[in-house]
Amino acid sequence: MGEIERIAEEVIRRLGASRPTPAPTATRTTATATIPVSVSARHIHVSRGVLDRLYGEGFKLTPLTDLGQPGEFASGQTVTLVGQSMRAIEHVRVLGPVRTYTQVEISGTDAVRLGIEPPIRRSGDLAGSEPITLVGPVGTVRLSEGTIRAMRHIHMTERDAQIHRVKNEDLVRIRFSGPAALVLENVLIRVSKSALLELHLDTDNANAADVRPPMTVEILHS
Amino acid sequence: MGEIERIAEEVIRRLGASRPTPAPTATRTTATATIPVSVSARHIHVSRGVLDRLYGEGFKLTPLTDLGQPGEFASGQTVTLVGQSMRAIEHVRVLGPVRTYTQVEISGTDAVRLGIEPPIRRSGDLAGSEPITLVGPVGTVRLSEGTIRAMRHIHMTERDAQIHRVKNEDLVRIRFSGPAALVLENVLIRVSKSALLELHLDTDNANAADVRPPMTVEILHS
Repeated sequence: MGEIERIAEEVIRRLGASRPTPAPTATRTTATATIPVSVSARHIHVSRGVLDRLYGEGFKLTPLTDLGQPGEFASGQTVTLVGQSMRAIEHVRVLGPVRTYTQVEISGTDAVRLGIEPPIRRSGDLAGSEPITLVGPVGTVRLSEGTIRAMRHIHMTERDAQIHRVKNEDLVRIRFSGPAALVLENVLIRVSKSALLELHLDTDNANAADVRPPMTVEILHS
Repeated sequence: MGEIERIAEEVIRRLGASRPTPAPTATRTTATATIPVSVSARHIHVSRGVLDRLYGEGFKLTPLTDLGQPGEFASGQTVTLVGQSMRAIEHVRVLGPVRTYTQVEISGTDAVRLGIEPPIRRSGDLAGSEPITLVGPVGTVRLSEGTIRAMRHIHMTERDAQIHRVKNEDLVRIRFSGPAALVLENVLIRVSKSALLELHLDTDNANAADVRPPMTVEILHS
């Protein structure tokens, strides 16, 4: 198996860890006191304009697997990220659907590999974030900003927020047990109408805590 | 710059993060209440027999940079790690001096990349740990065990232990502040006569906490 197939397989395998387990669907209507954990491998959200330049005018992303949040999917498309000193990471998954902005989400480990220092930000907060170059099969886009390390966050509905005794924009703490036990602070609560209850962690956070999905956690209240 | 040069550069850069800053030397004789943090990138310790097979009979490791712990050094030698399904990580630094056992220390992120599941262990505790294949310029060694994710630990002397109100084998907690704030639990205290006071974290833990050496931390006592 060649290098490219190997990386592609890894990306798909990691994305697999992001897929919801059967339980969350039930959680959505009958919220419980535990929160499913989802691990997000490096990925990119694209605008219509950027997708046009990378994959061709009017290109339509092909859904590969549904993700936890309603409507979101991992597409069959990938890009190569190129950072400072032309250091690259290949086969970075494009998520759909197309958004109004382009955003690259990588881990701190990825950032070291690319030689860049993206800030820890919430989704969409891209002003002054790291530049990056995206390479697609048709063209290349040089972004002056848009690369972040996603802030730890929990998607939930208003009903979930009531049950978990939190509100939108709260920063909460989550404890993981076991040999790699740790307490994550500054976990952002993101309340939205159609959210699927899910804690999103990047691969550094997940691996530091030795997270093995499917698993659930609780918010620390003391 | 080719792929190999790029990876070599990265490894050297990461190892750079493991070098002691000027401060710790002073810390060694006049222990203080803060503990320097050192980030350990993936690396390997080799036995005489394994080094013979990888690099040739009687091969002598060439010191490249001194590491924090007295006598330890990053050598000019590297190996390629090959895990399940023949997935590989190239240019993994060999540390010296030669030990009585061979031990491969990687992060959880590295483990995912290699398709293996090494346990979280303290150094030298290798029974039943993950198998791996090592490839050197002269030969290849297939280890039936020896790959671990190093348990978070703090090297210190008896004098440091008194100052920090801990004892050998204690498990303590360390808090990191900032946007990626977290509390690491199960941090093992390792007391030895010639230790340099230093918290050792793998790259997943360091990146999850957004550690930027040089920096110091304190043990949580409440």
